[in-house]
Amino acid sequence: MTPADPRLSLNQATIKYATLADALRLTAGAGIPAIGLWREPVADVGLADAARMVADSGLRVSSLCRGGFFTALEGAERRAALDENRRAIEETATLGAAGAPGSASVLVLVAGGLPRGSTDIVGARARVAEAIAELEPEAHEAGVTLAIEPLHPMYAADRAVVSTLGQALDVAEQFPAASVGVVVDTFHIWWDPDVQTQIARAGAGGRIASYQVCDFLTPIPADALLARGMMGDGHVDFGRLTAAVNATGYSGDVEVEIFNAEIWATDPAEVVARTAQAFTDHIPLRDTRHPA
Amino acid sequence: MTPADPRLSLNQATIKYATLADALRLTAGAGIPAIGLWREPVADVGLADAARMVADSGLRVSSLCRGGFFTALEGAERRAALDENRRAIEETATLGAAGAPGSASVLVLVAGGLPRGSTDIVGARARVAEAIAELEPEAHEAGVTLAIEPLHPMYAADRAVVSTLGQALDVAEQFPAASVGVVVDTFHIWWDPDVQTQIARAGAGGRIASYQVCDFLTPIPADALLARGMMGDGHVDFGRLTAAVNATGYSGDVEVEIFNAEIWATDPAEVVARTAQAFTDHIPLRDTRHPA
Repeated sequence: MTPADPRLSLNQATIKYATLADALRLTAGAGIPAIGLWREPVADVGLADAARMVADSGLRVSSLCRGGFFTALEGAERRAALDENRRAIEETATLGAAGAPGSASVLVLVAGGLPRGSTDIVGARARVAEAIAELEPEAHEAGVTLAIEPLHPMYAADRAVVSTLGQALDVAEQFPAASVGVVVDTFHIWWDPDVQTQIARAGAGGRIASYQVCDFLTPIPADALLARGMMGDGHVDFGRLTAAVNATGYSGDVEVEIFNAEIWATDPAEVVARTAQAFTDHIPLRDTRHPA
Repeated sequence: MTPADPRLSLNQATIKYATLADALRLTAGAGIPAIGLWREPVADVGLADAARMVADSGLRVSSLCRGGFFTALEGAERRAALDENRRAIEETATLGAAGAPGSASVLVLVAGGLPRGSTDIVGARARVAEAIAELEPEAHEAGVTLAIEPLHPMYAADRAVVSTLGQALDVAEQFPAASVGVVVDTFHIWWDPDVQTQIARAGAGGRIASYQVCDFLTPIPADALLARGMMGDGHVDFGRLTAAVNATGYSGDVEVEIFNAEIWATDPAEVVARTAQAFTDHIPLRDTRHPA
Protein backbone atom coordinates (compact mmCIF):
# COMPACT_ATOMS: atom_id res chain seq x y z
CA MET A 1 0.00 0.00 0.00
CA THR A 2 1.25 3.49 -0.88
CA PRO A 3 1.78 5.54 2.30
CA ALA A 4 -0.89 8.19 2.80
CA ASP A 5 -0.06 11.67 1.62
CA PRO A 6 1.35 13.72 4.53
CA ARG A 7 -1.17 16.48 3.84
CA LEU A 8 -4.24 14.26 3.60
CA SER A 9 -7.01 14.76 6.12
CA LEU A 10 -9.97 12.44 6.36
CA ASN A 11 -13.16 14.35 6.95
CA GLN A 12 -15.18 12.31 9.38
CA ALA A 13 -18.34 12.58 7.24
CA THR A 14 -16.70 10.25 4.72
CA ILE A 15 -17.18 7.46 7.27
CA LYS A 16 -20.37 8.91 8.64
CA TYR A 17 -21.45 5.95 10.74
CA ALA A 18 -18.15 5.51 12.58
CA THR A 19 -17.95 6.79 16.15
CA LEU A 20 -15.33 9.40 16.97
CA ALA A 21 -13.17 6.69 18.55
CA ASP A 22 -13.38 4.51 15.46
CA ALA A 23 -12.78 7.42 13.11
CA LEU A 24 -9.63 8.45 14.99
CA ARG A 25 -8.36 4.88 15.17
CA LEU A 26 -9.01 4.10 11.51
CA THR A 27 -7.50 7.37 10.32
CA ALA A 28 -4.34 7.03 12.38
CA GLY A 29 -4.13 3.34 11.60
CA ALA A 30 -4.06 4.06 7.88
CA GLY A 31 -1.19 6.49 8.35
CA ILE A 32 -3.38 9.48 7.54
CA PRO A 33 -2.01 12.34 9.63
CA ALA A 34 -5.10 14.56 10.01
CA ILE A 35 -8.84 14.47 10.50
CA GLY A 36 -11.74 16.85 9.90
CA LEU A 37 -14.24 16.53 12.75
CA TRP A 38 -18.00 16.94 12.97
CA ARG A 39 -19.87 18.37 15.93
CA GLU A 40 -22.36 15.52 16.30
CA PRO A 41 -19.93 12.64 16.93
CA VAL A 42 -17.95 14.98 19.19
CA ALA A 43 -21.10 15.72 21.15
CA ASP A 44 -21.79 12.00 21.44
CA VAL A 45 -18.78 11.63 23.74
CA GLY A 46 -18.69 15.17 25.12
CA LEU A 47 -16.19 17.89 24.25
CA ALA A 48 -13.68 17.22 27.03
CA ASP A 49 -13.46 13.50 26.28
CA ALA A 50 -13.34 14.22 22.55
CA ALA A 51 -10.41 16.58 23.04
CA ARG A 52 -8.55 13.93 25.07
CA MET A 53 -9.22 11.31 22.42
CA VAL A 54 -7.99 13.64 19.67
CA ALA A 55 -4.82 14.41 21.65
CA ASP A 56 -4.22 10.70 22.24
CA SER A 57 -4.67 9.93 18.55
CA GLY A 58 -1.68 12.04 17.52
CA LEU A 59 -3.70 13.35 14.58
CA ARG A 60 -3.84 16.92 13.41
CA VAL A 61 -7.29 18.50 13.36
CA SER A 62 -7.92 20.27 10.08
CA SER A 63 -11.43 21.67 10.70
CA LEU A 64 -14.69 21.29 12.56
CA CYS A 65 -17.96 20.98 10.66
CA ARG A 66 -20.03 22.98 11.08
CA GLY A 67 -21.59 26.27 12.00
CA GLY A 68 -23.72 28.61 9.99
CA PHE A 69 -27.43 28.21 9.17
CA PHE A 70 -28.01 31.81 10.08
CA THR A 71 -30.30 33.12 7.35
CA ALA A 72 -33.41 33.35 9.52
CA LEU A 73 -35.03 36.73 9.99
CA GLU A 74 -34.25 38.51 13.26
CA GLY A 75 -35.99 36.80 16.17
CA ALA A 76 -35.71 33.78 18.41
CA GLU A 77 -34.68 31.36 15.66
CA ARG A 78 -31.87 33.63 14.54
CA ARG A 79 -30.68 34.22 18.10
CA ALA A 80 -30.63 30.47 18.75
CA ALA A 81 -28.60 29.92 15.59
CA LEU A 82 -26.06 32.53 16.62
CA ASP A 83 -25.75 31.00 20.09
CA GLU A 84 -25.20 27.61 18.50
CA ASN A 85 -22.40 29.15 16.46
CA ARG A 86 -20.84 30.56 19.62
CA ARG A 87 -20.71 27.06 21.08
CA ALA A 88 -19.23 25.78 17.83
CA ILE A 89 -16.48 28.42 18.00
CA GLU A 90 -15.52 27.24 21.47
CA GLU A 91 -15.51 23.62 20.36
CA THR A 92 -13.31 24.51 17.40
CA ALA A 93 -10.78 26.22 19.65
CA THR A 94 -10.72 23.29 22.07
CA LEU A 95 -10.35 20.62 19.41
CA GLY A 96 -7.82 22.60 17.38
CA ALA A 97 -5.70 22.97 20.53
CA ALA A 98 -6.01 19.26 21.27
CA GLY A 99 -4.75 18.19 17.86
CA ALA A 100 -1.13 17.54 16.96
CA PRO A 101 1.10 20.46 15.94
CA GLY A 102 -0.07 21.96 12.67
CA SER A 103 -3.72 21.63 13.61
CA ALA A 104 -6.05 24.37 12.42
CA SER A 105 -8.85 25.94 14.43
CA VAL A 106 -11.19 26.27 11.49
CA LEU A 107 -14.98 26.24 11.79
CA VAL A 108 -16.71 25.47 8.50
CA LEU A 109 -19.83 27.60 7.95
CA VAL A 110 -22.74 26.51 5.79
CA ALA A 111 -24.83 29.61 5.33
CA GLY A 112 -28.33 28.19 5.39
CA GLY A 113 -31.05 28.46 2.78
CA LEU A 114 -34.05 30.70 2.23
CA PRO A 115 -36.46 31.01 5.14
CA ARG A 116 -39.59 28.93 4.51
CA GLY A 117 -41.82 30.61 1.96
CA SER A 118 -39.34 33.36 1.20
CA THR A 119 -37.83 34.09 -2.20
CA ASP A 120 -35.70 36.97 -0.93
CA ILE A 121 -32.25 35.57 -1.60
CA VAL A 122 -30.72 39.04 -1.56
CA GLY A 123 -32.00 39.57 1.98
CA ALA A 124 -30.88 36.12 3.11
CA ARG A 125 -27.41 36.80 1.77
CA ALA A 126 -27.26 40.09 3.64
CA ARG A 127 -28.13 38.29 6.87
CA VAL A 128 -25.22 35.89 6.35
CA ALA A 129 -22.80 38.82 6.28
CA GLU A 130 -24.50 40.33 9.34
CA ALA A 131 -24.20 37.08 11.28
CA ILE A 132 -20.52 36.80 10.50
CA ALA A 133 -20.02 40.40 11.57
CA GLU A 134 -21.62 39.51 14.89
CA LEU A 135 -19.56 36.35 15.40
CA GLU A 136 -16.19 37.52 14.11
CA PRO A 137 -14.99 39.22 17.32
CA GLU A 138 -15.70 36.05 19.27
CA ALA A 139 -13.92 33.92 16.71
CA HIS A 140 -10.97 36.30 16.79
CA GLU A 141 -10.85 36.17 20.57
CA ALA A 142 -10.90 32.36 20.48
CA GLY A 143 -8.26 32.12 17.76
CA VAL A 144 -10.74 30.47 15.42
CA THR A 145 -11.07 31.04 11.68
CA LEU A 146 -14.64 31.09 10.39
CA ALA A 147 -14.51 29.41 6.98
CA ILE A 148 -17.37 30.40 4.70
CA GLU A 149 -18.16 27.49 2.42
CA PRO A 150 -19.82 28.31 -0.87
CA LEU A 151 -22.14 25.44 -1.73
CA HIS A 152 -23.12 24.29 -5.20
CA PRO A 153 -25.98 26.45 -6.56
CA MET A 154 -28.30 23.43 -6.53
CA TYR A 155 -28.43 23.93 -2.76
CA ALA A 156 -29.07 27.68 -2.88
CA ALA A 157 -32.73 27.41 -1.94
CA ASP A 158 -32.62 24.96 0.92
CA ARG A 159 -29.11 24.81 2.33
CA ALA A 160 -26.72 27.63 1.49
CA VAL A 161 -27.35 30.97 -0.15
CA VAL A 162 -23.59 31.41 -0.55
CA SER A 163 -23.13 29.91 -4.00
CA THR A 164 -19.76 30.93 -5.42
CA LEU A 165 -16.23 31.38 -4.18
CA GLY A 166 -16.30 34.99 -5.35
CA GLN A 167 -19.41 35.67 -3.28
CA ALA A 168 -17.85 34.02 -0.21
CA LEU A 169 -14.75 36.17 -0.64
CA ASP A 170 -16.86 39.31 -0.95
CA VAL A 171 -18.07 38.57 2.57
CA ALA A 172 -14.82 37.26 4.03
CA GLU A 173 -12.82 40.25 2.85
CA GLN A 174 -14.87 42.52 5.08
CA PHE A 175 -13.01 40.96 8.04
CA PRO A 176 -9.40 40.10 9.02
CA ALA A 177 -8.04 37.05 7.22
CA ALA A 178 -7.11 35.39 10.50
CA SER A 179 -10.72 35.21 11.62
CA VAL A 180 -12.71 34.83 8.37
CA GLY A 181 -11.69 32.72 5.40
CA VAL A 182 -13.31 30.44 2.84
CA VAL A 183 -13.53 26.76 2.05
CA VAL A 184 -12.42 25.73 -1.41
CA ASP A 185 -14.37 22.51 -2.04
CA THR A 186 -13.99 21.02 -5.49
CA PHE A 187 -17.46 19.49 -5.46
CA HIS A 188 -19.13 22.84 -5.01
CA ILE A 189 -17.10 25.05 -7.34
CA TRP A 190 -15.65 22.89 -10.13
CA TRP A 191 -18.24 24.14 -12.64
CA ASP A 192 -17.58 27.87 -12.04
CA PRO A 193 -16.17 29.60 -15.14
CA ASP A 194 -14.43 32.03 -12.79
CA VAL A 195 -13.02 29.43 -10.41
CA GLN A 196 -9.32 29.79 -11.14
CA THR A 197 -9.42 33.56 -10.75
CA GLN A 198 -11.28 33.23 -7.48
CA ILE A 199 -8.91 30.58 -6.08
CA ALA A 200 -6.02 32.91 -6.88
CA ARG A 201 -7.85 35.77 -5.17
CA ALA A 202 -8.52 33.62 -2.11
CA GLY A 203 -4.90 32.59 -1.89
CA ALA A 204 -3.51 36.07 -2.41
CA GLY A 205 -5.56 37.31 0.52
CA GLY A 206 -4.63 34.40 2.78
CA ARG A 207 -8.27 33.35 2.80
CA ILE A 208 -8.03 29.62 2.03
CA ALA A 209 -8.97 28.18 5.40
CA SER A 210 -9.65 24.72 3.99
CA TYR A 211 -9.18 22.86 0.73
CA GLN A 212 -11.62 19.97 0.41
CA VAL A 213 -11.70 17.47 -2.41
CA CYS A 214 -14.27 15.04 -3.66
CA ASP A 215 -15.80 14.30 -7.02
CA PHE A 216 -19.15 15.32 -8.57
CA LEU A 217 -21.24 12.39 -9.75
CA THR A 218 -24.08 12.15 -12.25
CA PRO A 219 -26.86 11.33 -12.33
CA ILE A 220 -27.53 13.39 -9.23
CA PRO A 221 -29.12 10.95 -6.75
CA ALA A 222 -32.61 11.35 -5.33
CA ASP A 223 -31.04 12.95 -2.26
CA ALA A 224 -29.04 15.65 -4.02
CA LEU A 225 -26.72 16.01 -1.02
CA LEU A 226 -25.28 12.59 -1.81
CA ALA A 227 -23.89 13.37 -5.28
CA ARG A 228 -20.38 13.48 -3.85
CA GLY A 229 -18.01 10.74 -4.96
CA MET A 230 -14.52 9.39 -4.54
CA MET A 231 -11.89 11.32 -6.49
CA GLY A 232 -11.69 9.91 -10.00
CA ASP A 233 -15.25 8.60 -10.08
CA GLY A 234 -16.83 11.76 -11.51
CA HIS A 235 -16.46 14.94 -13.50
CA VAL A 236 -14.05 17.13 -11.52
CA ASP A 237 -10.74 18.20 -13.02
CA PHE A 238 -8.63 17.84 -9.88
CA GLY A 239 -5.42 18.60 -11.75
CA ARG A 240 -6.54 22.05 -12.80
CA LEU A 241 -8.12 22.99 -9.48
CA THR A 242 -5.27 21.64 -7.36
CA ALA A 243 -2.73 23.44 -9.55
CA ALA A 244 -4.63 26.66 -8.88
CA VAL A 245 -4.53 25.98 -5.13
CA ASN A 246 -0.85 25.00 -5.28
CA ALA A 247 -0.08 28.24 -7.10
CA THR A 248 -1.36 30.25 -4.15
CA GLY A 249 1.19 28.64 -1.86
CA TYR A 250 -1.48 26.97 0.27
CA SER A 251 0.29 24.34 2.32
CA GLY A 252 -2.34 23.19 4.81
CA ASP A 253 -4.16 19.91 5.07
CA VAL A 254 -6.43 18.78 2.27
CA GLU A 255 -9.65 17.15 3.39
CA VAL A 256 -11.58 14.42 1.66
CA GLU A 257 -15.25 14.86 2.50
CA ILE A 258 -17.67 12.53 0.74
CA PHE A 259 -21.41 12.17 1.35
CA ASN A 260 -22.34 9.06 -0.58
CA ALA A 261 -24.78 6.33 0.38
CA GLU A 262 -22.71 3.55 -1.16
CA ILE A 263 -19.51 4.68 0.53
CA TRP A 264 -21.33 5.02 3.85
CA ALA A 265 -22.54 1.43 3.46
CA THR A 266 -18.98 0.17 2.93
CA ASP A 267 -16.69 -1.05 5.72
CA PRO A 268 -15.08 2.17 7.01
CA ALA A 269 -11.60 0.64 7.09
CA GLU A 270 -11.92 -0.07 3.39
CA VAL A 271 -13.18 3.47 2.74
CA VAL A 272 -10.21 4.94 4.57
CA ALA A 273 -7.79 2.86 2.50
CA ARG A 274 -9.53 3.71 -0.75
CA THR A 275 -9.51 7.39 0.19
CA ALA A 276 -5.77 7.42 0.81
CA GLN A 277 -5.12 5.70 -2.52
CA ALA A 278 -7.51 7.88 -4.56
CA PHE A 279 -5.98 10.97 -2.99
CA THR A 280 -2.49 9.92 -4.04
CA ASP A 281 -3.73 9.02 -7.52
CA HIS A 282 -5.78 12.14 -8.25
CA ILE A 283 -4.64 15.09 -6.13
CA PRO A 284 -1.35 16.45 -7.46
CA LEU A 285 -0.13 18.53 -4.52
CA ARG A 286 2.95 20.52 -5.37
CA ASP A 287 4.54 20.11 -2.01
CA THR A 288 3.44 17.27 0.19
CA ARG A 289 5.52 18.20 3.19
CA HIS A 290 3.19 19.56 5.80
CA PRO A 291 4.77 22.68 7.31
CA ALA A 292 4.02 21.71 10.91
CA MET B 1 -60.86 34.10 -16.38
CA THR B 2 -58.28 36.89 -16.61
CA PRO B 3 -57.27 37.40 -20.25
CA ALA B 4 -53.78 36.10 -20.97
CA ASP B 5 -50.94 38.59 -20.88
CA PRO B 6 -50.28 39.94 -24.41
CA ARG B 7 -46.59 39.09 -24.07
CA LEU B 8 -47.04 35.54 -22.78
CA SER B 9 -45.70 32.70 -24.88
CA LEU B 10 -46.36 29.08 -24.03
CA ASN B 11 -43.30 26.96 -24.57
CA GLN B 12 -44.50 23.72 -26.04
CA ALA B 13 -42.45 21.65 -23.58
CA THR B 14 -44.83 22.74 -20.82
CA ILE B 15 -47.43 20.49 -22.47
CA LYS B 16 -44.89 17.97 -23.64
CA TYR B 17 -47.29 15.24 -24.70
CA ALA B 18 -49.53 17.43 -26.87
CA THR B 19 -49.08 17.22 -30.63
CA LEU B 20 -48.16 20.38 -32.50
CA ALA B 21 -51.78 20.70 -33.66
CA ASP B 22 -53.09 20.41 -30.12
CA ALA B 23 -50.47 22.78 -28.72
CA LEU B 24 -51.35 25.46 -31.27
CA ARG B 25 -55.08 25.00 -30.72
CA LEU B 26 -54.87 25.05 -26.92
CA THR B 27 -52.56 28.06 -26.88
CA ALA B 28 -54.66 30.12 -29.26
CA GLY B 29 -57.85 28.94 -27.59
CA ALA B 30 -56.66 30.29 -24.25
CA GLY B 31 -55.99 33.68 -25.78
CA ILE B 32 -52.23 33.26 -25.43
CA PRO B 33 -50.70 35.11 -28.38
CA ALA B 34 -47.40 33.28 -28.83
CA ILE B 35 -45.78 29.86 -28.68
CA GLY B 36 -42.26 28.50 -28.28
CA LEU B 37 -41.82 25.45 -30.51
CA TRP B 38 -39.71 22.30 -30.23
CA ARG B 39 -38.07 20.51 -33.11
CA GLU B 40 -39.41 17.04 -32.33
CA PRO B 41 -43.18 17.79 -32.59
CA VAL B 42 -42.44 19.90 -35.64
CA ALA B 43 -40.61 16.96 -37.21
CA ASP B 44 -43.56 14.72 -36.41
CA VAL B 45 -45.67 16.59 -38.98
CA GLY B 46 -42.86 17.79 -41.24
CA LEU B 47 -41.52 21.34 -41.49
CA ALA B 48 -43.73 22.52 -44.38
CA ASP B 49 -46.94 21.34 -42.74
CA ALA B 50 -45.79 22.71 -39.39
CA ALA B 51 -45.20 26.12 -40.94
CA ARG B 52 -48.70 26.11 -42.49
CA MET B 53 -50.24 25.10 -39.16
CA VAL B 54 -48.37 27.85 -37.35
CA ALA B 55 -49.48 30.42 -39.93
CA ASP B 56 -53.09 29.24 -39.65
CA SER B 57 -52.95 29.47 -35.84
CA GLY B 58 -52.38 33.21 -35.88
CA LEU B 59 -49.83 32.77 -33.10
CA ARG B 60 -46.47 34.46 -32.90
CA VAL B 61 -43.48 32.16 -32.69
CA SER B 62 -41.10 33.21 -29.92
CA SER B 63 -38.36 30.59 -30.32
CA LEU B 64 -37.44 27.12 -31.49
CA CYS B 65 -35.87 24.63 -29.08
CA ARG B 66 -33.20 23.58 -29.64
CA GLY B 67 -29.79 23.40 -31.13
CA GLY B 68 -26.43 23.04 -29.49
CA PHE B 69 -24.90 19.88 -28.02
CA PHE B 70 -21.64 20.67 -29.70
CA THR B 71 -19.01 19.94 -27.08
CA ALA B 72 -17.68 16.76 -28.74
CA LEU B 73 -14.06 16.66 -29.81
CA GLU B 74 -13.41 17.24 -33.51
CA GLY B 75 -14.54 14.25 -35.55
CA ALA B 76 -17.65 12.63 -36.95
CA GLU B 77 -19.80 13.22 -33.86
CA ARG B 78 -18.97 16.90 -33.84
CA ARG B 79 -19.59 17.27 -37.58
CA ALA B 80 -22.97 15.55 -37.21
CA ALA B 81 -23.89 17.91 -34.37
CA LEU B 82 -22.97 20.96 -36.44
CA ASP B 83 -25.00 19.68 -39.39
CA GLU B 84 -27.95 19.13 -37.09
CA ASN B 85 -27.61 22.73 -36.00
CA ARG B 86 -27.62 23.86 -39.61
CA ARG B 87 -30.94 22.11 -40.12
CA ALA B 88 -32.24 23.71 -36.91
CA ILE B 89 -31.26 27.16 -38.19
CA GLU B 90 -33.28 26.59 -41.37
CA GLU B 91 -36.27 25.37 -39.39
CA THR B 92 -36.04 28.42 -37.14
CA ALA B 93 -36.10 30.76 -40.12
CA THR B 94 -39.05 28.95 -41.68
CA LEU B 95 -41.14 28.83 -38.52
CA GLY B 96 -40.30 32.40 -37.51
CA ALA B 97 -41.47 33.58 -40.94
CA ALA B 98 -44.67 31.54 -40.63
CA GLY B 99 -45.65 33.08 -37.32
CA ALA B 100 -47.77 36.18 -36.86
CA PRO B 101 -46.10 39.63 -37.01
CA GLY B 102 -43.74 40.08 -34.08
CA SER B 103 -42.47 36.53 -34.30
CA ALA B 104 -38.80 35.97 -33.50
CA SER B 105 -36.43 33.69 -35.38
CA VAL B 106 -34.59 32.55 -32.29
CA LEU B 107 -32.89 29.17 -31.97
CA VAL B 108 -32.22 28.19 -28.36
CA LEU B 109 -28.81 26.54 -27.90
CA VAL B 110 -28.05 24.11 -25.09
CA ALA B 111 -24.29 23.72 -25.13
CA GLY B 112 -23.91 20.07 -24.25
CA GLY B 113 -21.97 18.49 -21.39
CA LEU B 114 -18.54 16.99 -20.99
CA PRO B 115 -17.60 14.27 -23.47
CA ARG B 116 -17.83 10.84 -21.84
CA GLY B 117 -14.92 10.26 -19.49
CA SER B 118 -13.58 13.79 -19.87
CA THR B 119 -13.11 16.29 -17.05
CA ASP B 120 -11.82 19.02 -19.37
CA ILE B 121 -14.55 21.60 -18.89
CA VAL B 122 -12.25 24.39 -20.09
CA GLY B 123 -11.76 22.58 -23.39
CA ALA B 124 -15.47 21.81 -23.74
CA ARG B 125 -16.29 25.46 -23.20
CA ALA B 126 -13.79 26.48 -25.85
CA ARG B 127 -15.46 24.11 -28.32
CA VAL B 128 -18.83 25.77 -27.67
CA ALA B 129 -17.42 29.12 -28.75
CA GLU B 130 -15.79 27.49 -31.78
CA ALA B 131 -19.07 25.87 -32.83
CA ILE B 132 -20.91 29.15 -32.60
CA ALA B 133 -18.19 30.84 -34.64
CA GLU B 134 -18.72 28.21 -37.31
CA LEU B 135 -22.52 28.52 -37.30
CA GLU B 136 -22.88 32.28 -36.92
CA PRO B 137 -22.47 33.21 -40.61
CA GLU B 138 -25.20 30.74 -41.53
CA ALA B 139 -27.49 32.06 -38.80
CA HIS B 140 -26.82 35.60 -39.98
CA GLU B 141 -27.59 34.66 -43.56
CA ALA B 142 -30.86 33.04 -42.49
CA GLY B 143 -31.89 35.94 -40.25
CA VAL B 144 -31.77 33.70 -37.19
CA THR B 145 -30.54 34.62 -33.73
CA LEU B 146 -28.61 31.87 -31.95
CA ALA B 147 -29.59 32.16 -28.28
CA ILE B 148 -27.02 30.69 -25.91
CA GLU B 149 -28.82 29.36 -22.85
CA PRO B 150 -26.80 29.15 -19.65
CA LEU B 151 -28.06 26.13 -17.73
CA HIS B 152 -28.04 25.69 -13.97
CA PRO B 153 -24.62 24.48 -12.77
CA MET B 154 -26.15 21.19 -11.65
CA TYR B 155 -26.26 20.31 -15.36
CA ALA B 156 -22.67 21.37 -16.12
CA ALA B 157 -21.34 17.81 -16.36
CA ASP B 158 -23.98 16.14 -18.45
CA ARG B 159 -25.98 18.76 -20.33
CA ALA B 160 -24.52 22.24 -20.64
CA VAL B 161 -21.06 23.53 -19.85
CA VAL B 162 -22.39 27.08 -20.18
CA SER B 163 -23.36 27.75 -16.58
CA THR B 164 -23.84 31.48 -16.03
CA LEU B 165 -25.30 34.42 -17.88
CA GLY B 166 -21.94 36.18 -17.69
CA GLN B 167 -20.23 33.24 -19.35
CA ALA B 168 -22.89 33.09 -22.09
CA LEU B 169 -22.41 36.80 -22.74
CA ASP B 170 -18.64 36.38 -22.92
CA VAL B 171 -19.26 34.10 -25.89
CA ALA B 172 -22.16 36.00 -27.46
CA GLU B 173 -20.32 39.32 -27.42
CA GLN B 174 -17.74 37.90 -29.82
CA PHE B 175 -20.45 38.10 -32.53
CA PRO B 176 -23.03 40.59 -33.81
CA ALA B 177 -26.04 40.95 -31.51
CA ALA B 178 -28.44 40.20 -34.36
CA SER B 179 -27.07 36.71 -34.81
CA VAL B 180 -25.95 35.66 -31.29
CA GLY B 181 -27.81 36.42 -28.08
CA VAL B 182 -28.60 34.72 -24.80
CA VAL B 183 -31.58 33.18 -23.06
CA VAL B 184 -32.45 34.60 -19.66
CA ASP B 185 -34.22 31.71 -17.91
CA THR B 186 -35.15 32.31 -14.29
CA PHE B 187 -34.84 28.64 -13.37
CA HIS B 188 -31.23 28.49 -14.40
CA ILE B 189 -29.90 31.79 -13.09
CA TRP B 190 -32.01 32.87 -10.10
CA TRP B 191 -29.29 31.81 -7.61
CA ASP B 192 -26.46 33.81 -9.27
CA PRO B 193 -25.12 36.56 -6.99
CA ASP B 194 -24.23 38.49 -10.15
CA VAL B 195 -27.54 37.99 -11.96
CA GLN B 196 -28.83 41.56 -11.94
CA THR B 197 -25.57 42.97 -13.28
CA GLN B 198 -25.51 40.35 -16.02
CA ILE B 199 -29.14 40.92 -17.02
CA ALA B 200 -28.36 44.63 -17.34
CA ARG B 201 -25.28 43.81 -19.42
CA ALA B 202 -27.31 41.52 -21.67
CA GLY B 203 -29.96 44.17 -22.17
CA ALA B 204 -27.50 46.98 -22.81
CA GLY B 205 -25.94 44.97 -25.59
CA GLY B 206 -29.26 43.95 -27.14
CA ARG B 207 -28.45 40.32 -26.30
CA ILE B 208 -31.67 39.17 -24.64
CA ALA B 209 -33.01 36.87 -27.33
CA SER B 210 -35.47 35.18 -24.99
CA TYR B 211 -36.81 35.64 -21.48
CA GLN B 212 -38.12 32.39 -20.03
CA VAL B 213 -39.80 31.99 -16.69
CA CYS B 214 -40.50 29.06 -14.44
CA ASP B 215 -39.88 28.29 -10.81
CA PHE B 216 -37.19 26.22 -9.07
CA LEU B 217 -38.56 23.48 -6.85
CA THR B 218 -37.04 21.56 -3.95
CA PRO B 219 -36.43 18.82 -3.22
CA ILE B 220 -34.83 18.31 -6.61
CA PRO B 221 -36.58 15.27 -8.10
CA ALA B 222 -34.80 12.03 -8.98
CA ASP B 223 -34.66 13.26 -12.58
CA ALA B 224 -32.98 16.59 -11.93
CA LEU B 225 -34.23 17.98 -15.26
CA LEU B 226 -37.75 17.98 -13.83
CA ALA B 227 -37.17 20.41 -10.94
CA ARG B 228 -38.95 23.14 -12.90
CA GLY B 229 -42.26 24.33 -11.50
CA MET B 230 -45.16 26.68 -12.11
CA MET B 231 -44.40 30.27 -11.18
CA GLY B 232 -45.16 30.78 -7.51
CA ASP B 233 -44.61 27.16 -6.52
CA GLY B 234 -40.89 27.48 -5.71
CA HIS B 235 -37.99 29.69 -4.70
CA VAL B 236 -37.54 32.19 -7.53
CA ASP B 237 -37.92 35.91 -6.90
CA PHE B 238 -39.74 36.77 -10.15
CA GLY B 239 -40.29 40.35 -9.08
CA ARG B 240 -36.60 41.13 -8.80
CA LEU B 241 -35.57 39.28 -11.95
CA THR B 242 -38.42 40.63 -14.07
CA ALA B 243 -37.70 44.15 -12.86
CA ALA B 244 -34.13 43.70 -14.04
CA VAL B 245 -35.35 42.53 -17.44
CA ASN B 246 -37.91 45.34 -17.64
CA ALA B 247 -35.18 47.86 -16.86
CA THR B 248 -33.29 46.82 -19.99
CA GLY B 249 -36.26 47.75 -22.17
CA TYR B 250 -36.77 44.18 -23.32
CA SER B 251 -40.22 44.08 -24.89
CA GLY B 252 -40.37 40.66 -26.53
CA ASP B 253 -42.40 37.63 -25.65
CA VAL B 254 -41.88 35.91 -22.33
CA GLU B 255 -41.95 32.13 -22.46
CA VAL B 256 -43.15 29.75 -19.81
CA GLU B 257 -41.18 26.53 -20.13
CA ILE B 258 -41.77 23.90 -17.46
CA PHE B 259 -40.43 20.35 -17.36
CA ASN B 260 -42.38 18.71 -14.56
CA ALA B 261 -43.77 15.20 -14.38
CA GLU B 262 -46.91 16.22 -12.53
CA ILE B 263 -47.68 19.04 -14.94
CA TRP B 264 -47.06 16.76 -17.90
CA ALA B 265 -49.54 14.28 -16.42
CA THR B 266 -52.23 16.98 -16.15
CA ASP B 267 -54.82 17.71 -18.87
CA PRO B 268 -52.99 20.15 -21.17
CA ALA B 269 -55.96 22.51 -21.41
CA GLU B 270 -55.84 22.89 -17.65
CA VAL B 271 -52.08 23.44 -17.75
CA VAL B 272 -52.49 26.19 -20.33
CA ALA B 273 -55.12 27.93 -18.22
CA ARG B 274 -53.02 27.63 -15.06
CA THR B 275 -49.99 28.96 -16.91
CA ALA B 276 -51.83 32.06 -18.09
CA GLN B 277 -53.09 32.75 -14.59
CA ALA B 278 -49.76 32.14 -12.83
CA PHE B 279 -48.05 34.36 -15.36
CA THR B 280 -50.42 37.21 -14.63
CA ASP B 281 -50.08 36.67 -10.89
CA HIS B 282 -46.29 36.40 -10.68
CA ILE B 283 -44.59 38.08 -13.65
CA PRO B 284 -44.75 41.86 -13.27
CA LEU B 285 -44.00 43.03 -16.81
CA ARG B 286 -43.61 46.77 -17.00
CA ASP B 287 -45.24 47.07 -20.35
CA THR B 288 -47.54 44.36 -21.53
CA ARG B 289 -48.18 45.79 -24.97
CA HIS B 290 -46.31 43.68 -27.46
CA PRO B 291 -44.57 45.99 -29.93
CA ALA B 292 -45.61 44.03 -33.01
